[in-house]
Amino acid sequence: MRIALDAMGGDHAPAPIVAGAIQAVQASADVTVVLVGDRARIEPLLVEGEFPRERLEIFHCSQAVGMEESPVDGLRRKPDNSISRCWQLLAEKKVDAVVGAGNTGAMVAGGLRLRKFLKNVRRPGIATIMPTAKGVCIVLDVGANVHPKPSHLFQYGVMGSVFAKHILQRDNPSIGLMNVGEEEGKGHELAQKTHELFNLSPLKSRFVGNIEGRDIHRGACDVVVTDGFVGNVILKVCEGVFEFIMKLVAKEVIGPLQVERELGQKSLRELIQRYDYSHFGGAPLLGIDGICIICHGSSGDRAIRNAINVAVQYARVRLNELIVQELDTLPTKADDE
Amino acid sequence: MRIALDAMGGDHAPAPIVAGAIQAVQASADVTVVLVGDRARIEPLLVEGEFPRERLEIFHCSQAVGMEESPVDGLRRKPDNSISRCWQLLAEKKVDAVVGAGNTGAMVAGGLRLRKFLKNVRRPGIATIMPTAKGVCIVLDVGANVHPKPSHLFQYGVMGSVFAKHILQRDNPSIGLMNVGEEEGKGHELAQKTHELFNLSPLKSRFVGNIEGRDIHRGACDVVVTDGFVGNVILKVCEGVFEFIMKLVAKEVIGPLQVERELGQKSLRELIQRYDYSHFGGAPLLGIDGICIICHGSSGDRAIRNAINVAVQYARVRLNELIVQELDTLPTKADDE
Repeated sequence: MRIALDAMGGDHAPAPIVAGAIQAVQASADVTVVLVGDRARIEPLLVEGEFPRERLEIFHCSQAVGMEESPVDGLRRKPDNSISRCWQLLAEKKVDAVVGAGNTGAMVAGGLRLRKFLKNVRRPGIATIMPTAKGVCIVLDVGANVHPKPSHLFQYGVMGSVFAKHILQRDNPSIGLMNVGEEEGKGHELAQKTHELFNLSPLKSRFVGNIEGRDIHRGACDVVVTDGFVGNVILKVCEGVFEFIMKLVAKEVIGPLQVERELGQKSLRELIQRYDYSHFGGAPLLGIDGICIICHGSSGDRAIRNAINVAVQYARVRLNELIVQELDTLPTKADDE
Repeated sequence: MRIALDAMGGDHAPAPIVAGAIQAVQASADVTVVLVGDRARIEPLLVEGEFPRERLEIFHCSQAVGMEESPVDGLRRKPDNSISRCWQLLAEKKVDAVVGAGNTGAMVAGGLRLRKFLKNVRRPGIATIMPTAKGVCIVLDVGANVHPKPSHLFQYGVMGSVFAKHILQRDNPSIGLMNVGEEEGKGHELAQKTHELFNLSPLKSRFVGNIEGRDIHRGACDVVVTDGFVGNVILKVCEGVFEFIMKLVAKEVIGPLQVERELGQKSLRELIQRYDYSHFGGAPLLGIDGICIICHGSSGDRAIRNAINVAVQYARVRLNELIVQELDTLPTKADDE
């Protein structure tokens, strides 16, 4: 399969991005990565080392949307930017997937602009994988759709379930709705109406109802459904708390050790590497006709390689076909559009 | 000053609640606590030990709203419940403050039902104190108002600033608006319009603009403004991540230590005690005509004593008068009501 990788996207692009691509083609013999970006900056990164150079192509483009740039402005003012070129390759079916660690808003906007959604999908959503006390769960939407309708959230539950089942290997994935309390009738209108949609649907048996913020990490369900505003805040709050606490632990728990400080530091580093929210795999944009994996801006080579791997798995299990099949079995009528 | 304490509210009430009250009257010679609840269960807790029994009164009532009960149902079906009695004492000016660790929804609903808001306040909000890398900040609203208007959020910024200045001792407290990105124009309509209100107001110089989830714990501002839905999710997500990570650290970082495991465990316990979100002081309900401090359901004696202490400080600095004064200097017109 062929993957377009935004070589210019990310806080430290292009070096770690290209390094991640090299690792990915080394790991999978049927993967070709198209590095989209400035040829003059990419080519020097491909001269040394042992790797299948023939499965690393370069698609040259002259511009890049900055990490802090307004997505809409950036895409408009820079027609030859690497993000738009990635999406163009996908639209022209020259690649099967798009992977990038650049400006998230621009990645999503670039994709939504194509308006190529899967059949019956009302609005794509970004799904992110989070660690919990019982393995991992998937939280969506984390930022594609900040004004969703109840039917959008319902579809996020459906798409998230398909992902949880076929990528995370969960039989009968359970679905929870993020809310401010567990009892029915809690929260704002969006939450109340979404709750009703799940309860009236064939997904009812897998719907655990409302969950609260603290339930995510307790592993209360496999799929956490929420709107793009709340989901984005959750994702970044987790990152912030993690960063904050790890520094505290390093200073106040490991610091006072005399004999075994080095061992403590090593274990802590390993834990940070394993759970660092900014590196916890890529986030798929579910619902578009194609595959798109969005990575954190600070992604290093390992994160890029992981994201490419998620794209490969995604294609292998034919996730989009499964999503379309699942949506076909459900009522498509929505009163809220 | 006199404080009504819901003796029946909390996961382990009344024992730790009464113990917290005893510590509070021991600490402040001018504080009287009115223990509101079942006399038969409270009295036995007041027989032993050295403390000024005359500053611990009992106001008997026969019912209590359960922690998991629907707030509206609970208040309606149980007219003689301890939460309503606390609010009644406040309304009759028999106490200066209400403190409780019971059903949060019922605490808020009980207060809002009185409709005694401070002059010009459109809607009260719950403010919670959170630890950051630069001290503490205040986040509001965390659950009183899940359908706010931009003018409500603006007022949360005003009230939160007054709290930050006079209780947290911050000169010129900075205000940030929780959003999904830093640039202007980000987020949903509520966030966009609130951003505009701050920018057009005399608070502009202290308004740092949009902040993202990860900025809270980095200490990006003194006052974080958000709606009650998002704020509640933030609060509980922090709790969940903290709990999750502390268990991981105990197992994976402290567990492997051989020689200094006990020292590591001790430091970790101290860190948990200091930062445990469920015990991080009480959360004031700002905007009502009176003082109300809401505690976490799992509050122990220390948390209750801290909450009473916050109520005392609140009264001493005449926080409500300062809030009214501050609101008086600002435009009261709101187009969104």
